Amino acid sequence: MEEKLDKAIQDDYPEDFSWCYGCGRMNEAGHHFRTGIQNGQTVTIYTPKQEHMALPGYVYGGIVASLIDCHGTGSAAIALHRKNGQEIGDGSEPPRFVTASLHVDYVKPTPQGVPLKAIGKVEEIHPKKWKVTSEVFADDKLCAKGEVMAAVMPDTFLTK
Amino acid sequence: MEEKLDKAIQDDYPEDFSWCYGCGRMNEAGHHFRTGIQNGQTVTIYTPKQEHMALPGYVYGGIVASLIDCHGTGSAAIALHRKNGQEIGDGSEPPRFVTASLHVDYVKPTPQGVPLKAIGKVEEIHPKKWKVTSEVFADDKLCAKGEVMAAVMPDTFLTK
Repeated sequence: MEEKLDKAIQDDYPEDFSWCYGCGRMNEAGHHFRTGIQNGQTVTIYTPKQEHMALPGYVYGGIVASLIDCHGTGSAAIALHRKNGQEIGDGSEPPRFVTASLHVDYVKPTPQGVPLKAIGKVEEIHPKKWKVTSEVFADDKLCAKGEVMAAVMPDTFLTK
Repeated sequence: MEEKLDKAIQDDYPEDFSWCYGCGRMNEAGHHFRTGIQNGQTVTIYTPKQEHMALPGYVYGGIVASLIDCHGTGSAAIALHRKNGQEIGDGSEPPRFVTASLHVDYVKPTPQGVPLKAIGKVEEIHPKKWKVTSEVFADDKLCAKGEVMAAVMPDTFLTK
């Protein structure tokens, strides 16, 4: 059974910013990644669908990359939100990030049929640029390591 | 209109290796990325679906990463196949690769509604390890740069 996070930063994004195929709650076809906090670390839990395979039995790397991507921007949003004195679920609008770069090391083939858990560490590089280092586990087995450079979304992004 | 490659390396993979969510022709729900050769370079063309958005109007980064991923393994397969004296469509079975690592730099927001074209350069690092450097264009605008380290798939992979 997949563990469900009680609160996630994506639950607090305004609707206009909730269409992401990875983590937007308004995108019906999307993955609905949700990123919260457990034991002081950012966490995203997701069980890939049967079709998300590389070969039967193994998860497609693009899905692992997608998980790391949205886990990265979500983790950065949580960190900046907290730096601003806010918490997930407190009714305030969190900052939104875009991905400047994404790196994934595939440590071992990722088995299908079990929940994946991305666990992140966030570091402020600059007030508008945050680095998120992630590890992705399948049943406590480390399958991938990721790094996302996340940048605060420009104000003009939505209206362009 | 999306340009269609005449021949693609994925058309030649045996059925057992054609289930990848990114590039497997047997995976009905997948993206069906196809990688071929144009002007001596490897090319993959794909038009993201409406739902594959980051925000309305812009493509989700995880889809761009997926395109770069399968374009990378496909490009490496083409290169090693040719090194072995074979060509796409000649009836011989191409080698298959897995992704050891994936890097994406998002150069600018990727617009929706136009075909994306990944163009690759392949370099042999070791007989079983190939580096594929890619650029992804939307309507001739460079939107992302990628690097994939692709490794020849171990023989044991399918039976494990």
